[in-house]
Amino acid sequence: MTGRSYWIWHYGDYELFHNMKLHMRREEYGMNVPAFFKIDRPHLNIKFKKSFRTDFDGYMTVYLNGIGRINLDGHFYAPEARINVPSGEHTVEVSVANESGFPSIFVESDVCPSDKTWLSSHISGHFCPVGGDEAFDSADCRVEKFPFEYEERSPITTEEFCDGVLFDFGEELLARLLIDNADKNAELCVIYGESREEAFDRDEAIILESVSGRASYCLKARAFRYVCVIGANSDISALAEHEYLPLEQRGSFECSNELYNKIVDASVRTFHLNCREAFLDGIKRDRWVWSGDAYQSARINEYLFADDAIVRRTAVGLIGRAPFEAHLNGIVDYSFYFIIGLWEYYMAYGDRDFLERMYPRALEVIRFSEGRVNADGFITECEGDWVFVDWADMDRNGAVCAEQFLFAESYRVMADVAALVGQNGEEFRYKYDALRERIDRFYWREHLGAYIDSYESGKESVTRHANIFAVMYGFVSPDRAQIINENVFENDAVPKITTPYFKGYELDVYGKLGRLDKIERELDTYWGGMITLGAGTVWEEFDPSMNGIEHYAMYGGKFMKSLCHAWGAGPIYLFGRYYLGVYPTSPGYESFNVEPCLGGLDSMSGTVYAAGAFVKISFDKKHLAVSAERDGGTLIFRGERYPIKKNSPVILELKGMS
Amino acid sequence: MTGRSYWIWHYGDYELFHNMKLHMRREEYGMNVPAFFKIDRPHLNIKFKKSFRTDFDGYMTVYLNGIGRINLDGHFYAPEARINVPSGEHTVEVSVANESGFPSIFVESDVCPSDKTWLSSHISGHFCPVGGDEAFDSADCRVEKFPFEYEERSPITTEEFCDGVLFDFGEELLARLLIDNADKNAELCVIYGESREEAFDRDEAIILESVSGRASYCLKARAFRYVCVIGANSDISALAEHEYLPLEQRGSFECSNELYNKIVDASVRTFHLNCREAFLDGIKRDRWVWSGDAYQSARINEYLFADDAIVRRTAVGLIGRAPFEAHLNGIVDYSFYFIIGLWEYYMAYGDRDFLERMYPRALEVIRFSEGRVNADGFITECEGDWVFVDWADMDRNGAVCAEQFLFAESYRVMADVAALVGQNGEEFRYKYDALRERIDRFYWREHLGAYIDSYESGKESVTRHANIFAVMYGFVSPDRAQIINENVFENDAVPKITTPYFKGYELDVYGKLGRLDKIERELDTYWGGMITLGAGTVWEEFDPSMNGIEHYAMYGGKFMKSLCHAWGAGPIYLFGRYYLGVYPTSPGYESFNVEPCLGGLDSMSGTVYAAGAFVKISFDKKHLAVSAERDGGTLIFRGERYPIKKNSPVILELKGMS
Repeated sequence: MTGRSYWIWHYGDYELFHNMKLHMRREEYGMNVPAFFKIDRPHLNIKFKKSFRTDFDGYMTVYLNGIGRINLDGHFYAPEARINVPSGEHTVEVSVANESGFPSIFVESDVCPSDKTWLSSHISGHFCPVGGDEAFDSADCRVEKFPFEYEERSPITTEEFCDGVLFDFGEELLARLLIDNADKNAELCVIYGESREEAFDRDEAIILESVSGRASYCLKARAFRYVCVIGANSDISALAEHEYLPLEQRGSFECSNELYNKIVDASVRTFHLNCREAFLDGIKRDRWVWSGDAYQSARINEYLFADDAIVRRTAVGLIGRAPFEAHLNGIVDYSFYFIIGLWEYYMAYGDRDFLERMYPRALEVIRFSEGRVNADGFITECEGDWVFVDWADMDRNGAVCAEQFLFAESYRVMADVAALVGQNGEEFRYKYDALRERIDRFYWREHLGAYIDSYESGKESVTRHANIFAVMYGFVSPDRAQIINENVFENDAVPKITTPYFKGYELDVYGKLGRLDKIERELDTYWGGMITLGAGTVWEEFDPSMNGIEHYAMYGGKFMKSLCHAWGAGPIYLFGRYYLGVYPTSPGYESFNVEPCLGGLDSMSGTVYAAGAFVKISFDKKHLAVSAERDGGTLIFRGERYPIKKNSPVILELKGMS
Repeated sequence: MTGRSYWIWHYGDYELFHNMKLHMRREEYGMNVPAFFKIDRPHLNIKFKKSFRTDFDGYMTVYLNGIGRINLDGHFYAPEARINVPSGEHTVEVSVANESGFPSIFVESDVCPSDKTWLSSHISGHFCPVGGDEAFDSADCRVEKFPFEYEERSPITTEEFCDGVLFDFGEELLARLLIDNADKNAELCVIYGESREEAFDRDEAIILESVSGRASYCLKARAFRYVCVIGANSDISALAEHEYLPLEQRGSFECSNELYNKIVDASVRTFHLNCREAFLDGIKRDRWVWSGDAYQSARINEYLFADDAIVRRTAVGLIGRAPFEAHLNGIVDYSFYFIIGLWEYYMAYGDRDFLERMYPRALEVIRFSEGRVNADGFITECEGDWVFVDWADMDRNGAVCAEQFLFAESYRVMADVAALVGQNGEEFRYKYDALRERIDRFYWREHLGAYIDSYESGKESVTRHANIFAVMYGFVSPDRAQIINENVFENDAVPKITTPYFKGYELDVYGKLGRLDKIERELDTYWGGMITLGAGTVWEEFDPSMNGIEHYAMYGGKFMKSLCHAWGAGPIYLFGRYYLGVYPTSPGYESFNVEPCLGGLDSMSGTVYAAGAFVKISFDKKHLAVSAERDGGTLIFRGERYPIKKNSPVILELKGMS
């Protein structure tokens, strides 16, 4: 009987390899743009090890991705040789090195299959459990080929014009373009466009490629809806091989507001396109992984695919290899989101193992950050760092308040993770308390009813950012939250949040404060505005006051704006978290609350995937029905608490709702 | 006027890349053997930067090894585009990523050539001066091709036998084998041999390869003198493309003893073959870089090629990239040789810059080691470590004395390097003194007149190793050195040093003690024995009591012994250091001594390269002549000191020498 084998590798190498690959793909105006931040390669040489016993005579054949040899009980064997394994105790070690990819092995065996019981070391004395993927379950699987799936798409219209041909594929794709029937002697310039205008603009389009000398081409996967082939004659044909990750949609939301349903559809489509080796920010540009964007994506993912694997891949790629020498993506706040995100991951999926893997790396981030504090103990900007927070004017003199909240929340997480993985986290608990006390002492202004941006300049400037974090992470009492709400959030004198990125946090806070009306105002104008303009995916930014191709400009480029940007999918999170109202109250949804809220809707229904079990909600003015495939839930409605038993729907007949 | 440009890279990447390449090449019995220790890859993405001003309108064209783009004053340009640079102040940044090699750039420019005034960062906030090599001085140079030279060699005899053909190339080579006129349909097995017997032994030869399907082959560079092609017909022909590093032989030694001259010749040949991307241990097996071997090679190199570049390449490859997570090559002593070797390098070449680069890495080694001490503060073996010292029986219970001497000498070096590079090294001075005191207190036995191996077992076992280090590093007074000499070195009850590796240290100590007679005894029997058997290169080990092919066996393999092993070239060092007697007394030979000694010779002459200046010695029973191309030398002879002025030979007429 053959054991179940799959390809295994040194934990993290798979993620590092594909993270490297994806960060090599950004293009702009015909140029390659290497990542602005450090990208790590996987390890070069790895030793795999397993001790086992067998009660019968068996065999093993070891397949390598790389070069190397097999050592069974002190005897050496070549890769792919059939090795007899007599009954008894054995130790097998496999040394593998791989220059172009990452070392990995597959063991075909009836006594010692390759699986997660193996250990590996990058030859630094320590062995730890391997990484691996059960989907790579045969010797001929190629672990360096990311398991995308492909779907052929034909253009919905083909339009000839004097210079060439324009293909419209009807919707945004990330696809390999297949060109056929081209004139071998023609110099073709292939211009990609998320918009029709972009595809026609050879000078300003972000992605383009010149090709010649062949009748057919297969170009690399890129984001587009339109493709213009300059220099092509009318015989030319094009197909798109759409490349995507087959993810199961586990969360859903539908409601009585058709516009919102369309917003959800566009959000789902946008988010799915950006879920690849990791969470991308946008599929046209820059196709990179940013810790801040990824943090928001993880929240969206929780209410859509609930795919824990992509969260792990993203985190492992982002944190890279030791030593930790610079903030994540070079940005102070982005380091903290990495840590904070670990706990949100744990709450969503209950995966203690991953936190155990990540704890030493999070510790490095904390130690690094602690080396960059000012005399008052606040994190500050050192050489090479970027205190980003948001693209917004704020008083950035000295230590910035918003960063301190992220720092404090990171300490809170470190204390909890340490306790979880059996380390002493008292230090972090203490530092958390001390930092919170200092934040209040240095940044809180009673007379303003607000946290100020920074205390060094004496400007006493108030923006929304720090105050949003204060409420979002529960650093303030409900009373103080109300004070902040009145003095900051409801105060038009305080500059509005202008970026959709930070709007993600702002709307989360409105959800926490029960202000679904404010969420709906944004849905109607911001998201609704795009939908009304015909957007099938959500853009990187939207300003209703703009017209025509003004919408496509950003960062000083005519078409620099991404028209399919992950953070635009925020409504998925908002509907799941604050309308369906499902969220874990202990790790992995061991316990969870369901606090449904119709807001301005007449009815809604949907599902949330609670770590292995679906929770379904159906809610209109007359009925509220909640069912769950697991115990542990509590329905909270009109101040009452109703326990939710596994597969026993709680159904409330409602009266007195207007 | 075009400035002088050459390829530049992030410091260390060139060395890491070639170190990686070389450690992928070991073969054994038809299998690839990945390194037993961690090998690092170069960085993936690098940012290069330079600020400059020009008084005239110029241009620049940037060539990349990798993908990326150029940012001049905020505007982006493609690689290889001609960029106009108007007169004035400018900042240019070049971002490069390279998956298969290492990021590097070449700038053709009349205003801003690529040279060592550029800075680079692996995008972690810090910029530091680039690495580069002036030899790569045109855009079409390939920095990933190590600059070996090639020389065609024909076999001196070709011998047909029933199964195939044997080629004898007359001497040991490291060469690509070119086979021609083979029968396309024949399955050929190419067996390499450092000895004739090995080339005939398909089962036991270390290196072999099966090929078929072509009439001609070019096989990868391997070590051999003999090649046997099984399955070949008599038409087949073979050539060798000998691959070597063109190194200038700067040091020389010739004397009245013809055997010794032959030993020097074999040593030179052996050492040259092993000087490649870095100091190899042996060219057949294992073709790797070991810190202990490299430490001895650096000493040999000082008296032969005096090539500082290979010492740096070796050190940078060995230490690899941070973090330092395991001892060098996994061996405790080998970590210390890395540190100690830094100072010997500085004494030989006076290169402060390199020590500045290496100081943070050496500090990591020290901190790592300090984390692995026992309750008495002695370095000990932790999980994954190997306390090697030598292949020798000794009391290895607990902390071993020999390691403590290396630890102490490392502290001494750290204190000096810290002072040199402007860091505070007082801590290391203090720790050095404290450790020396503890060594004497725990390991010195007055009644034995010796340092014992280890104190934990109570065995009070004495071997030569620790005592050799005590004298070699000058830890003991001349009086105690004599006590050790009598009780240990001259004591036949203390087991002999059996490995040529440790014999390197032992003979150094005999030199320091003025016992050239003991050195000569080894030259006569050990090295002389090999020469008498016809060896053209020096073997990994030699036992005069063996016969025939017994000599080729080692590590349990019939032909596992390397017949061209770097440490065998030790006589080059011994003759230069103790016969010619030239050595620096301050860094870079700012001052140096010449203490010539004829030992048992009638006459000798030779040169030593004293950091840019040749020192020549000619010495027979009647004359001693010393000249130097630099000031700073002192001739020490019969208790007298004679200052050596630049280019003014000191000539002593000798009387009264027997």
